[in-house]
Amino acid sequence: MIVFESERLIDWGDCDAAGIVFFPNFFAWVDGHFHQFTDSLGFDHRTLMRDYGLLGTPLKDTRCTFHAPASYGDRLTIASRVTKIGQSSLSSAYRFTRGDTLIAEAMETRVMAQQTETGIAKATIPDKIRALLEDRLSPD
Amino acid sequence: MIVFESERLIDWGDCDAAGIVFFPNFFAWVDGHFHQFTDSLGFDHRTLMRDYGLLGTPLKDTRCTFHAPASYGDRLTIASRVTKIGQSSLSSAYRFTRGDTLIAEAMETRVMAQQTETGIAKATIPDKIRALLEDRLSPD
Amino acid sequence: MIVFESERLIDWGDCDAAGIVFFPNFFAWVDGHFHQFTDSLGFDHRTLMRDYGLLGTPLKDTRCTFHAPASYGDRLTIASRVTKIGQSSLSSAYRFTRGDTLIAEAMETRVMAQQTETGIAKATIPDKIRALLEDRLSPD
Amino acid sequence: MIVFESERLIDWGDCDAAGIVFFPNFFAWVDGHFHQFTDSLGFDHRTLMRDYGLLGTPLKDTRCTFHAPASYGDRLTIASRVTKIGQSSLSSAYRFTRGDTLIAEAMETRVMAQQTETGIAKATIPDKIRALLEDRLSPD
Repeated sequence: MIVFESERLIDWGDCDAAGIVFFPNFFAWVDGHFHQFTDSLGFDHRTLMRDYGLLGTPLKDTRCTFHAPASYGDRLTIASRVTKIGQSSLSSAYRFTRGDTLIAEAMETRVMAQQTETGIAKATIPDKIRALLEDRLSPD
Repeated sequence: MIVFESERLIDWGDCDAAGIVFFPNFFAWVDGHFHQFTDSLGFDHRTLMRDYGLLGTPLKDTRCTFHAPASYGDRLTIASRVTKIGQSSLSSAYRFTRGDTLIAEAMETRVMAQQTETGIAKATIPDKIRALLEDRLSPD
Repeated sequence: MIVFESERLIDWGDCDAAGIVFFPNFFAWVDGHFHQFTDSLGFDHRTLMRDYGLLGTPLKDTRCTFHAPASYGDRLTIASRVTKIGQSSLSSAYRFTRGDTLIAEAMETRVMAQQTETGIAKATIPDKIRALLEDRLSPD
Repeated sequence: MIVFESERLIDWGDCDAAGIVFFPNFFAWVDGHFHQFTDSLGFDHRTLMRDYGLLGTPLKDTRCTFHAPASYGDRLTIASRVTKIGQSSLSSAYRFTRGDTLIAEAMETRVMAQQTETGIAKATIPDKIRALLEDRLSPD
């Protein structure tokens, strides 16, 4: 498996009144991780906009399953892999762990998007971007 | 179908640099809506803690599918229904609309949880809470 | 005093592990309120960008004093007034109350900003926008 | 000057539709930094609660001045110092920099708080905590 890893320290403010992570933050961390991943490949949102005229990679679908609670002060490891590359879509899987404990698993499908006169529409993934992603493809 | 509705005005700060909602906010809005729903039934987190010794209703699993972009100034209607009530779990479905436009659909499963000496464990839904929820059950 | 008011229901997820509002949310609510205010005057960020070529109204300085804790389920009233209008800056004061209880007071100074080739620079407030704001000026 | 430093990578989701940091996030980062600081001294919220029966360190007053915009992908250095220690209050100053560029400066006053039967009240800073903080005192 080809995996990209990052770390996330859970802040006091990431937790709710039950003392555990307010779950939408896991999706924010997935998103932050995704941007660190594309950045590591050599492209980010600025590249997509400036070099390819694209708007970005909005979500089409995302899911998260929670296995164990996490709280402030925990340092999570996020490991992701690219599971599928379509014409204009990109699917990834994520695992959050704290040491040996599995905290959460997420999956998502994003689409390459462009701004059109009438709104936001999907766009074909540019060949150069596709090549960078295919080098990291690691399906189930 | 038995539906509970709330409204959400999208703030400038809810949007990302592409000018559309940063998607984790949809999950925050699902959660806010869920609490408005249980509040409307007559119980909230304080009730769960004080009257039943419970910790709350952490997420087991959640998913969101995004159909159309939304942006600041949009006023979304959130409509939810309870789709399943288990021994200690509760599943709900959510629809976000802006006028006639479907923006996003979400589903979630929560578990009734209690604090134990060794951590957080699932708890049986109290009979009185179960009765309130069953009155609103609206399966697929 | 000329005051603009809005309401904000505090969500479960707005609170921290001590069970009270995680304080940065007060600033998010100030910002949401500010946009509701300019919207009520007839201009929003889209107007500023499209009609005036401006980037928006980033913050120069902001402060908040906290008087009493607030928690989920509380419904806060936010009352603001414009305290000063400069060449390119705009100062406002905010009061958060829950019924008769003063929860927090905030002040802020924003600047009208434009995108230039070298970055973001301050811009003169357009006459039409200035006139709308001066109608609501309510200094200390 | 006795300074505590941390780093923060700005996420895509931390920025608003103008492409710069949504300013309330600076306060969230101040708070995250504060907790890393007290953690480095040997106490965190769990210690305060368990060993001293305290609720935490809610804010009394905070202010931020913004000097230059920052955006996603920027890596900020946060440097803080303790500027004043009162009977139950603690004041700190923060500087956010990106390389040599000053991005923002913040100050805050927190109070040591305890839960009482009638609500939240300020508490005297415990001697052991005070000693740890005084070792790091670095007034203007």
